[in-house]
Amino acid sequence: MSLKALIDDNRSAIEADPVKASATFAVTGHLAGTTEVAICARHHGLTVDEPPALAGADRGANPVEHALIALASCQAVTYLFWAAQLGIELESVHVIAEGDLDVRGFFGFDQNVRPGFTAVRLKVTPSGPESAGRYEQLADAVDAHCPVYDIFSNATPIERNVAVTAS
Amino acid sequence: MSLKALIDDNRSAIEADPVKASATFAVTGHLAGTTEVAICARHHGLTVDEPPALAGADRGANPVEHALIALASCQAVTYLFWAAQLGIELESVHVIAEGDLDVRGFFGFDQNVRPGFTAVRLKVTPSGPESAGRYEQLADAVDAHCPVYDIFSNATPIERNVAVTAS
Repeated sequence: MSLKALIDDNRSAIEADPVKASATFAVTGHLAGTTEVAICARHHGLTVDEPPALAGADRGANPVEHALIALASCQAVTYLFWAAQLGIELESVHVIAEGDLDVRGFFGFDQNVRPGFTAVRLKVTPSGPESAGRYEQLADAVDAHCPVYDIFSNATPIERNVAVTAS
Repeated sequence: MSLKALIDDNRSAIEADPVKASATFAVTGHLAGTTEVAICARHHGLTVDEPPALAGADRGANPVEHALIALASCQAVTYLFWAAQLGIELESVHVIAEGDLDVRGFFGFDQNVRPGFTAVRLKVTPSGPESAGRYEQLADAVDAHCPVYDIFSNATPIERNVAVTAS
């Protein structure tokens, strides 16, 4: 099935039953080494870790790198889907995502410094036979519809519950 | 070196030279299959993919799952560091991160639906010999200093550049 047909099928299914538009994603994680975090996302397991400068063994990319991985991969997939939506031929897309962090926020050394990225830069290289203007149009559509770009760009409400387990 | 000593060393180094507080993280990604994205974060390679319902081969967790992986792992590591900062004994910490998505935002079927998570739930289970109140105090310190919690909770400026490559 083409991507365009998949999108049209989703549109028909959701118009008939809007509940089909809702999806919940869930992951679990726990400390499995000094800073090593063992993650399960459905049947996908992976390891997140810090480099030695943050007491870790560098057994995987670290948490903020995973935030950039989410952003870069979501951009790539959204380019694919929106190229299909807009009828734009796309042969490849490369993404570089960079984030600046001031660790005084994480460590609490300066209450005026935010813990997260102070700035993020996205460099996207789409390739194909269309005009530069068409790929600019695609980029604008992607940024308006990319889920992780939205998570970075806007506030998301978090409900947090802590359940203490006596040891 | 203890975590407390590592934190104190960072504080001294940054007080002496504030430039040492700045770090830039970068990842690259490109479409390597239908929806498969090949990622490099320093020397760590990994695969992000969509499930078959979104035309993928499910060769890895998908982009929004990676956003939750970033959040869950960052919470776990921040519990560890802030337990050390606050002198709270922490034997383990388990995190569940859930996010609700309405795909009408991604597909552009409804302009009033945001593409990102409409709600996120964090369930955190710290374990150890301290009182429940101490772990609640720890949880509050973590949420105030966790980089990825901040990225979810607040807007981050993104500078995006598109460089079209003629095919």
